[in-house]
Amino acid sequence: MEEKKINLLGISGSIRNASYNTGLLRAAQEVLPSSMNLEIYSLAKIPLYNGDLESNPPNSVIEFKSKISESDALLFAITEYNYSVSGVLKNAIDWASRPVKNSPLNGKPFAMMGAGGALGTARAQYHFRQIAVFTNMHTFNKPEVLVTNAYEKFDSNGNLKDEPTKERIKLLLDTLAQWIKRFQ
Amino acid sequence: MEEKKINLLGISGSIRNASYNTGLLRAAQEVLPSSMNLEIYSLAKIPLYNGDLESNPPNSVIEFKSKISESDALLFAITEYNYSVSGVLKNAIDWASRPVKNSPLNGKPFAMMGAGGALGTARAQYHFRQIAVFTNMHTFNKPEVLVTNAYEKFDSNGNLKDEPTKERIKLLLDTLAQWIKRFQ
Amino acid sequence: MEEKKINLLGISGSIRNASYNTGLLRAAQEVLPSSMNLEIYSLAKIPLYNGDLESNPPNSVIEFKSKISESDALLFAITEYNYSVSGVLKNAIDWASRPVKNSPLNGKPFAMMGAGGALGTARAQYHFRQIAVFTNMHTFNKPEVLVTNAYEKFDSNGNLKDEPTKERIKLLLDTLAQWIKRFQ
Amino acid sequence: MEEKKINLLGISGSIRNASYNTGLLRAAQEVLPSSMNLEIYSLAKIPLYNGDLESNPPNSVIEFKSKISESDALLFAITEYNYSVSGVLKNAIDWASRPVKNSPLNGKPFAMMGAGGALGTARAQYHFRQIAVFTNMHTFNKPEVLVTNAYEKFDSNGNLKDEPTKERIKLLLDTLAQWIKRFQ
Repeated sequence: MEEKKINLLGISGSIRNASYNTGLLRAAQEVLPSSMNLEIYSLAKIPLYNGDLESNPPNSVIEFKSKISESDALLFAITEYNYSVSGVLKNAIDWASRPVKNSPLNGKPFAMMGAGGALGTARAQYHFRQIAVFTNMHTFNKPEVLVTNAYEKFDSNGNLKDEPTKERIKLLLDTLAQWIKRFQ
Repeated sequence: MEEKKINLLGISGSIRNASYNTGLLRAAQEVLPSSMNLEIYSLAKIPLYNGDLESNPPNSVIEFKSKISESDALLFAITEYNYSVSGVLKNAIDWASRPVKNSPLNGKPFAMMGAGGALGTARAQYHFRQIAVFTNMHTFNKPEVLVTNAYEKFDSNGNLKDEPTKERIKLLLDTLAQWIKRFQ
Repeated sequence: MEEKKINLLGISGSIRNASYNTGLLRAAQEVLPSSMNLEIYSLAKIPLYNGDLESNPPNSVIEFKSKISESDALLFAITEYNYSVSGVLKNAIDWASRPVKNSPLNGKPFAMMGAGGALGTARAQYHFRQIAVFTNMHTFNKPEVLVTNAYEKFDSNGNLKDEPTKERIKLLLDTLAQWIKRFQ
Repeated sequence: MEEKKINLLGISGSIRNASYNTGLLRAAQEVLPSSMNLEIYSLAKIPLYNGDLESNPPNSVIEFKSKISESDALLFAITEYNYSVSGVLKNAIDWASRPVKNSPLNGKPFAMMGAGGALGTARAQYHFRQIAVFTNMHTFNKPEVLVTNAYEKFDSNGNLKDEPTKERIKLLLDTLAQWIKRFQ
């Protein structure tokens, strides 16, 4: 009898077409362990968060929250803009987290990675760890996946060409598989 | 002969109607020194940042960047969601900062304040200070305006009722007036 | 047959006699679950970290590292000075973490709490969470124990007088007991 | 008539002999503009901070605080250990900042640089910026001097061999000279 697969929801902080970070998620699909599924979810249709709509949110938000609820864990590709998490990703987290008492993020295991410039989105990832404290999502310390000088490692369509980075992503996914077990 | 007034652009991290942080900006208008003007600019029409549109941005973004360019300094009311800057505000900064070589944020003096829960948006404000490093905006250290337990200090329309907080905002504005002179 | 007790090592970021944070550790001893032991370890004899002495460290450092190794988990009382972790505590972590490949901190579960001013050492605790990423120590998100306005809650000897804070510490210890099980 | 020189006090976060960060300070002496003096001050004799001794501090602390008072600006070489500022440096700041009302750090302009691993002490430098908020020291945004892969750029005595890094330090010092003028 087959074991039930782990369902990951992949979320990228960028909505541009050739995004390196969305490319990291596709690379994760390539190297995915057979025990996992990974669906990539685009944030393009999530509107700006508005507290006045919290009790009657847009359909795109309802769908996004359902996808999170149905997943076993989240896989974030953390776009760094201006030394922090992209507004696109932060805004999606703001929607998902409300109302707090029914947040689908609560208790959710996750892993993160990011592709950027000289520091490989490190600054954004540490901010994201702080965001995870409030939203009560659980991540691990290592490996950190900080993909530096991304323009050298992706083609112009945002597809990852760098084998060592793919190996690193595989290690991240294997670690996540182990990590999820701690929270079951 | 009258001296030219200092033009401040006020930006709130929340777009809900009775936002405490937008209320802080209205309170700043109440206590504004006679040497200053303060226009409050709403982020409600700024769409999600998309790098593919950077060379042909939406009109709302063009207008927002013009407003920043025309101002002498910015006054941010920093909404904290999930232990960081609201996605709404971060997203607006992401737009304003691109393309980097023509960013109207570059070299801009600013002050910030925030109304929130037990920590008065402190966590978001420290993240915002890091964002200011990349965008090269200049702020000062003190006074910090961390309005704790906001629900006790505002009415249900988001109007500030607390006199000590108004005094604190006045001190912030006076400090900003001095600070701007250093960068002229 | 009795179950083996969980051995906690308690570490305070301050070495002054009537330290509030050392007082938090004594309060933890008062409310300690019967399944736990808690030894308080003073950092007073740890000298400044010097990389030249790494292969031949002072006896106080050897002892400190042994105590960490023998413990099942660490309980930190995080003193905040100047919006970050006290130098005293950071210096002790710097010693304990070297050489990296034999660090007794590696994989260690921990909990933290702190007593301070208006923000209850929050700023220091978020810095400490980042330190934990490199040192690979494991902590949880909640409860956070941020003891504000400490001067009202402790007597002049640094003994905690505040019952709600004691309850909060008890909750922290119960959560830690559950947390440790995930990492066994 | 000669103009009065700007007196810089150089402070390294490491006390090991061949420290890369102390080496950065010596490199700064090499490329120093003729308008500046730079004295390097070692933290090796500063004991652990103890609040009980605040009113009667050790001589080494009295001397350190005098050196800060007499300087026009500070130049920090920020050692990163465990993803934050070294305990050695943080501890020295803790001493210098007390008692708060007479802190010689208050209002002091400074610049910082750091030599480390893949991220060039970035994580420690952002923590240090937060420390500067409380201590009310003034620094600028750019250039950031993040010396990555230091082991390739220094000899075994900790002397900087890398010309581009020396150029970067020169740019930092020129920027500091301009910055100091804003605060006079």
